[in-house]
Amino acid sequence: MKAWEENIRRVVPYVPGEQPKKEKIIKLNTNENPYPPAPGVEEVIKQMDYAKFRLYPDPTVGDLVKAIADRYQLEEDQVFVGVGSDDVLAMAFLTFFNSKKPILFPDITYSFYDVWAQVFRIPYQVQPLDQKFQIQAEDYKKENGGVIFPNPNAPTGIAMDLDFIEKILEQNQDVVVIVDEAYIDFGGISALPLLKKYENLLVVQTFSKSRSLAGIRIGYAMGNRTLIQAMQDVKYSFNSYTMNQPSIQIGVAALEDVSYFDRTKEKIIATRERIKPALKELGFSFLDSKTNFIFASHNSYAASDIFEYLKANDIYVRYFSGNPRIQNYLRISIGTDLEMDRFIAVLKEYLK
Amino acid sequence: MKAWEENIRRVVPYVPGEQPKKEKIIKLNTNENPYPPAPGVEEVIKQMDYAKFRLYPDPTVGDLVKAIADRYQLEEDQVFVGVGSDDVLAMAFLTFFNSKKPILFPDITYSFYDVWAQVFRIPYQVQPLDQKFQIQAEDYKKENGGVIFPNPNAPTGIAMDLDFIEKILEQNQDVVVIVDEAYIDFGGISALPLLKKYENLLVVQTFSKSRSLAGIRIGYAMGNRTLIQAMQDVKYSFNSYTMNQPSIQIGVAALEDVSYFDRTKEKIIATRERIKPALKELGFSFLDSKTNFIFASHNSYAASDIFEYLKANDIYVRYFSGNPRIQNYLRISIGTDLEMDRFIAVLKEYLK
Repeated sequence: MKAWEENIRRVVPYVPGEQPKKEKIIKLNTNENPYPPAPGVEEVIKQMDYAKFRLYPDPTVGDLVKAIADRYQLEEDQVFVGVGSDDVLAMAFLTFFNSKKPILFPDITYSFYDVWAQVFRIPYQVQPLDQKFQIQAEDYKKENGGVIFPNPNAPTGIAMDLDFIEKILEQNQDVVVIVDEAYIDFGGISALPLLKKYENLLVVQTFSKSRSLAGIRIGYAMGNRTLIQAMQDVKYSFNSYTMNQPSIQIGVAALEDVSYFDRTKEKIIATRERIKPALKELGFSFLDSKTNFIFASHNSYAASDIFEYLKANDIYVRYFSGNPRIQNYLRISIGTDLEMDRFIAVLKEYLK
Repeated sequence: MKAWEENIRRVVPYVPGEQPKKEKIIKLNTNENPYPPAPGVEEVIKQMDYAKFRLYPDPTVGDLVKAIADRYQLEEDQVFVGVGSDDVLAMAFLTFFNSKKPILFPDITYSFYDVWAQVFRIPYQVQPLDQKFQIQAEDYKKENGGVIFPNPNAPTGIAMDLDFIEKILEQNQDVVVIVDEAYIDFGGISALPLLKKYENLLVVQTFSKSRSLAGIRIGYAMGNRTLIQAMQDVKYSFNSYTMNQPSIQIGVAALEDVSYFDRTKEKIIATRERIKPALKELGFSFLDSKTNFIFASHNSYAASDIFEYLKANDIYVRYFSGNPRIQNYLRISIGTDLEMDRFIAVLKEYLK
């Protein structure tokens, strides 16, 4: 190893779900929305003034911040916008988790939490889910430097109710508690109403799932103005211009169309509920998902075998080989009704 | 202060150049390109398929990486793309500067270097420019954890020749040396030919200036595959999907049109050289800029007064009040000929 190589940071790179380039596949592996974004997005694209791209974007992302604040009845200084919720969450880790005490999060959860903790040298301690893959509130009643968990949790899909979230907040009033609500719009109950009571609460959401904009990268955090101001300060000290011009305009257009939003998310929920009995009939067990995916294991077939069979039939689901507790599970994103019918048909063939 | 506030990271936020919302101003304060991006960018926008925004973007940014590699005759695994060169540089700091020895950079330089060092807890030592605002190669001949400097330097605009860059590389073969070439296309000489000889060299460029795409946020690093792979690993461990779909397509279109690129940069260089005698006649001294800005001070009027007078006349230039060594300088971006004529006319009025 050469001298200059010695100071290179060593990391375990995250392996994102496959993004196969084939056109005719059924892609149920990265929790994308099967429906296109709101039609207003197309309008925005058509009317976009490319000549303005020569100018820096608004570093305050003002139009989008205002649209989000209006939508959730918050003040504008309660909203922070970033390049996908990964950017927002990483910025929150960097801003709020500077204690020497460990931050707490579940053992089975979004796979970036431990990576960010390592990158930023934040001590952490994972709290195992119970046998039913449930988060236990008591596990978060100990000295810590901060708390983060997704609600609904991923990849389990299980949602916690508002009383449960409040219990964790009650136990943790001296640290920042982040609720990562990437999947909240598919049946969970948001912690937003608790913002008034707990000023150490940060709620993070995304445009990638329920707003069909994974390709545009928009995430946002909501909280009291001290938290949001602190994130802004860190962000400005880091990279002032992160959201590009198209993102800002597209985000606003997607947010405006409330009825389109409601319709597509209802469709996804209906499809999810419809395929549950079909999966059960095929011998699958699964948790009560409040997300746009189902986390399922088969009672006699190995997840890895089902995964490979589906893939050979151009159906991609997500399989987590790393963690022994979940290595017999598949995470199946909810596609269109047509896609899910094909998915069930292929499974039937294999499991018959 | 509440307990949860105690662990909030304290930073000195960067204050970006003003982005006034008035329409009819002459904006010479953030080194934007006065010309629109290549016409191919408009085509790309018109043909963009908004329905695909529901899908995650290609995390490898493959099309844009290939376009950049082709343009600079490199292999694809020698190119890293990020959301603006700020993102690329921050990622390079995080990846390469993990020594306990201080990294070295000039005292008067891009204002983000010290901020990133602080955010990532990287020790650093600034090396003062000499009386003529020149970087001294000897200052970079000491034990260090890495070296970074812009070429041309900002905000001075002064370019170093290839021999000078090579001298610094010769002296620093055990650490990563980053040459930040944000302004290279306006008359500087790129360090790219040195990549073959020095595998610890990283060259960073941007689409924000010479390619008129500040609003889209594209930066890139070029180096040997070990360096690039290390940056990819850190990036994937941090946030896999950072470049959105429009950026990737727009970037490729901007890169393809070599003749438009050459024409606009030549126009900017011509305008810069044309206004130099006019500025001199008005009593300004300035350094030999090889960038799309001129860094100038007046022989009898205070920079702050000139700045305010211009602003009152809807002309925005950049004034750095913080650093005593440069507080009598203005950084004037090169606009169109028409804009610069108006700028000179307003100055004449004030200085008469």
